[in-house]
Amino acid sequence: MKFLLSIVVTVLFFISCKEKKADTTNGTADAEKKLIETDKAFSRLSEERGMKAAYIDYIDSNGVLLKPNLVPVSGANAIDYLIQQNDTAFSLTRQPQSAVVAASGDLGYTYGIFSYRLKSNDSTLYGTYVSIWKKQRDGTWKVVLDSGNDGIGEQYVTP
Amino acid sequence: MKFLLSIVVTVLFFISCKEKKADTTNGTADAEKKLIETDKAFSRLSEERGMKAAYIDYIDSNGVLLKPNLVPVSGANAIDYLIQQNDTAFSLTRQPQSAVVAASGDLGYTYGIFSYRLKSNDSTLYGTYVSIWKKQRDGTWKVVLDSGNDGIGEQYVTP
Repeated sequence: MKFLLSIVVTVLFFISCKEKKADTTNGTADAEKKLIETDKAFSRLSEERGMKAAYIDYIDSNGVLLKPNLVPVSGANAIDYLIQQNDTAFSLTRQPQSAVVAASGDLGYTYGIFSYRLKSNDSTLYGTYVSIWKKQRDGTWKVVLDSGNDGIGEQYVTP
Repeated sequence: MKFLLSIVVTVLFFISCKEKKADTTNGTADAEKKLIETDKAFSRLSEERGMKAAYIDYIDSNGVLLKPNLVPVSGANAIDYLIQQNDTAFSLTRQPQSAVVAASGDLGYTYGIFSYRLKSNDSTLYGTYVSIWKKQRDGTWKVVLDSGNDGIGEQYVTP
């Protein structure tokens, strides 16, 4: 009886290990969906309260910004850089094309097209962006690296 | 006796599960070191055989390039884009500043400074880059996304 019981315990333990693996796989698809939603929430916040507010809200405390004409700006310097920006003349929104998350669910990235609408003449410029995201202890995602390129110009038409 | 044996099996199985977790943690530090080495190997290949050869060798079959003036270029289109480049007038090298790898060891990124040396007048321009890497079945790393910015200019001095 004791022997049978311990066999059952071993089998249950084995099954629980297997299930953890399955959970990770399902978790990746869920995390990728969550990450796309997070990117869209960033974009809505930027539209509503400005690019600066959105970045300050979503950047990780060790986040790195790669910007034209600058060496990588990280951590407290990245926050300072953001605070110094004047974002009143334009509206930045982003349209994620894809999200990928590691099997462990702690690291992922989104990329897509950003639009930069100048309020003065209502013209819009487009560019590409990538954000790398790290899952925080509370389960939310923050940007650990952000990069991108201007220059798609007005010929780009949002699909 | 059978009971004891099955208890021993259960305990051994439990230990083996614990050890897998420990391996993952050590594996992350090792993987980050490996990723820095891979980035440096990319840079050496670029220096020796040109930017085009290096990118074609290191890009994942679904890799995405974010380039100025272009929407994201991915997969076969990214390879076509690379093949069409003329890289004979300059030499691209990269100096990674940091590598981060997910706990699961399947996804990571490097970022740093690239240098772009014009062979005609031996002048060098600098910029920032980020590569996101995916571990392949054979254990090597390939680039799933590459972005960056020109424009640091000649005022940047390699530390």
